[in-house]
Amino acid sequence: MQHSFKTEYPAPLLLLMRELQCLPGIGPRSAERIALWLLQSRHADPLRLARSLHDAKQLLKDCSLCGFFTTEDLCQICSHPGRKENPLCVVETPHDVIAIERTRVFQGSYHILGGKLSPLDGIGPEQLRITPLLERLKSAPPPELILALSADVEGEATTHYLTRLLAKTGILVSRIAHGLPAGGGLEYADEITLSKALAGRQAQGGS
Amino acid sequence: MQHSFKTEYPAPLLLLMRELQCLPGIGPRSAERIALWLLQSRHADPLRLARSLHDAKQLLKDCSLCGFFTTEDLCQICSHPGRKENPLCVVETPHDVIAIERTRVFQGSYHILGGKLSPLDGIGPEQLRITPLLERLKSAPPPELILALSADVEGEATTHYLTRLLAKTGILVSRIAHGLPAGGGLEYADEITLSKALAGRQAQGGS
Repeated sequence: MQHSFKTEYPAPLLLLMRELQCLPGIGPRSAERIALWLLQSRHADPLRLARSLHDAKQLLKDCSLCGFFTTEDLCQICSHPGRKENPLCVVETPHDVIAIERTRVFQGSYHILGGKLSPLDGIGPEQLRITPLLERLKSAPPPELILALSADVEGEATTHYLTRLLAKTGILVSRIAHGLPAGGGLEYADEITLSKALAGRQAQGGS
Repeated sequence: MQHSFKTEYPAPLLLLMRELQCLPGIGPRSAERIALWLLQSRHADPLRLARSLHDAKQLLKDCSLCGFFTTEDLCQICSHPGRKENPLCVVETPHDVIAIERTRVFQGSYHILGGKLSPLDGIGPEQLRITPLLERLKSAPPPELILALSADVEGEATTHYLTRLLAKTGILVSRIAHGLPAGGGLEYADEITLSKALAGRQAQGGS
């Protein structure tokens, strides 16, 4: 007794599900579950979520110096008085800034490239914030520039590109170490990681 | 060289992450990933998502008859001319309505209880849409009432409660079958499922 008439959710609900499904890591089933929860749970407040989306989009912009999120012209790091004299750390994304900040061991400032060189995705040097970096180095050269990019092929390519480009500036350029992750045994490390850990070995002084 | 100053994302972004983290199935890491994607990806449109949340909340209400989502007074099922004369199916949630509609084998109408009896969560008969069900049965008695509730302890309790309550109405009350799920071998079925499948066995006529 199959028939072709099939009821679906009303249009505004289907639209919400379709929007939720665009989010990274959210499939059709999660989107349906979240949409129904938003409309039915007494803990849900879809209008508050809508407002926070609106506010985040309207209030946040890129820091004119480093590219981090900010509500002012300069972000909280670039406007911090003690950080300017310290090393400058070049990273790919705002997320990387937070990752380094959470270690609490770095007190310099940052420059966010906005990605890494990836010709297949159409990302060349012009798509990254490299020209602003060069201008920044010219107007206020830091004591050291630390390249903290991904340890994958594109990250390596970007590191090499920048190293060559920055050689002319005379600024001390370093890159973060690649090697064994904390808590990782040698038997679990892949060959590339292990060979980089070997190549990057450091002399241990006797105490 | 640890120090206590630690930069976090600006307030509007942290607020958005906190809102996203309230959604079911979204943890702190997913919330961060989604918020950053919303602000950075060129495929993202946070204002469109905000609008669809707003619209879904403002435009949708409960059908005055069955409780399904609708933008009008009656939902598309209750306002369908052919469905009123057919059996009435009692379910827990709007999601259950869609699940049954997707089978395309049921052409009756629905009544959504809004949950199941669960004394531990403070859900008694008064918290469910049982009084509207009784009124509806009185004003327009269906040829059959099908109980399609969960096969768990609370669903069973609700089924028994309603069966006893509805016995007085004189309406034919049935419940959906519990047994082996499609594609499931006997060796994978748990004992309760298998004993219910045995108890619910049906005579097979010769062809």
